[in-house]
Amino acid sequence: MSAPYVYLNGRIVPLADAAISPYDIGLLRGYAVFDLLRTVGGRPFLLGEHLRRLRRSAELLGLTVPETDERIGAIIDELLVRNAHPEEATVRLVLTGGVSPDGMEFDPATPTFLILTHDLHEPPDSVYEDGVGLVLHEHRREVPEAKTTNYLTMLRYRESTAEAGAIDLLYHDGGRVFEAASASVYFVRDGRILAPGDSVLWGTVGSLVLEMMGKDYEIVSGDVTIEQALGAQEAFLTSTTRGVIPIVRLGEHQVGDGRPGPVTRDAQARWDEAIGKR
Amino acid sequence: MSAPYVYLNGRIVPLADAAISPYDIGLLRGYAVFDLLRTVGGRPFLLGEHLRRLRRSAELLGLTVPETDERIGAIIDELLVRNAHPEEATVRLVLTGGVSPDGMEFDPATPTFLILTHDLHEPPDSVYEDGVGLVLHEHRREVPEAKTTNYLTMLRYRESTAEAGAIDLLYHDGGRVFEAASASVYFVRDGRILAPGDSVLWGTVGSLVLEMMGKDYEIVSGDVTIEQALGAQEAFLTSTTRGVIPIVRLGEHQVGDGRPGPVTRDAQARWDEAIGKR
Repeated sequence: MSAPYVYLNGRIVPLADAAISPYDIGLLRGYAVFDLLRTVGGRPFLLGEHLRRLRRSAELLGLTVPETDERIGAIIDELLVRNAHPEEATVRLVLTGGVSPDGMEFDPATPTFLILTHDLHEPPDSVYEDGVGLVLHEHRREVPEAKTTNYLTMLRYRESTAEAGAIDLLYHDGGRVFEAASASVYFVRDGRILAPGDSVLWGTVGSLVLEMMGKDYEIVSGDVTIEQALGAQEAFLTSTTRGVIPIVRLGEHQVGDGRPGPVTRDAQARWDEAIGKR
Repeated sequence: MSAPYVYLNGRIVPLADAAISPYDIGLLRGYAVFDLLRTVGGRPFLLGEHLRRLRRSAELLGLTVPETDERIGAIIDELLVRNAHPEEATVRLVLTGGVSPDGMEFDPATPTFLILTHDLHEPPDSVYEDGVGLVLHEHRREVPEAKTTNYLTMLRYRESTAEAGAIDLLYHDGGRVFEAASASVYFVRDGRILAPGDSVLWGTVGSLVLEMMGKDYEIVSGDVTIEQALGAQEAFLTSTTRGVIPIVRLGEHQVGDGRPGPVTRDAQARWDEAIGKR
């Protein structure tokens, strides 16, 4: 199920030869960032945006991506050829502080830089057609502007989230909503699109969709309260691997009439067009 | 600097043969717990307490330690012999959710279980004699009762903490103080010892010290406000690797008269006695 080749610290090697040290600070202390992009037509999509975000995440942890964008692009091309995914793929870039012999100190000049590819698995059509729910969860990510590898809360609650028939957690704290554990979330009220603006990860798909929508809708970026979220007529999430998905339930609360609304449909159509689905 | 042998998933192997998969969920999603114990006279100290805490941490993440206490004790004994640390050692036990081919799903029945040993490095004598400072930092750990591998905040602020002449961060949130990033913290007011009781990791050294002190001092376990902490006559931290250290500054604030007080001295003496230092 894993792809046969991975990139690790300067070389593309068979998976069996890609050994992460037991002393890696990414393992011992969770000190790592990553990014995840998808292919469209077999080619990396929004590569520049994802690399910009990865570099920003790294900077927030005092780390530096040790390769140029051009070189990373070439590595990804080569990996995709070697791994020969039957359809679209995702590409995961992981950067840690590197090996730490004492489990505490590390040298940012010698990071661990890892690139993996996976088959892209999209949710079933019914998710896009009927929408899904989110579970409300009081939490704010520790370094929200960085895409760190810390998914403790999402993974701890993955079973109860599935049992609730929901696709993800919606993080809120201090009366404000932020983001889902693995996606950006937007709310539609009176024809305006409300985008939580602080303490969230910058979303590559979300930004592209909002940019396309901005010609026809007012986008309001800033604080979004729980009351505003629960009172929205529509809500949708955006995600690299999943595109645009309608949100029709927030906890026990039904969003609008419980069906995907026209603004969400419009966002889905524009995303599908961007990735050449129609 | 790394010890030559490590234990990984059932076997003690040379470090070069201990390969962590690039797909380990402990690396890709920070989904892992650990514990750290020290030797006294070359023998594991408080082993039972540390293993109990490791199992509790694992349980909070839906994981299970895959070996019995007896077997873990035997593995540690063997590792300590093979690694032949010149003086005392620390033993780090790390448990992750295991390999995750898609970077999200994993099977708790096949975890990664890793045991490393390090030379024990204790702070210089002056730290014990003169005390140290803590930097106040607004934060509460994500799963406070579990010793997860998530040290994002501590490591992000390690340089500014050192520049402030402090040894660690003191986490506080909502007007309450909790714990240092890598230690338990206690406060002395009017002869009573205040122990933050909720949203903190159970401390092995702290619990032993408080148990010894409980015969002569009143221990008050529960919420400790920032005001109570700043108004304390004394404060001290406890840590597996560092024992009992006087805290004489909290941020810009001097604790008591800025010198280690009598209750802290008493706690240090009892700890030294417990580990046979006097």
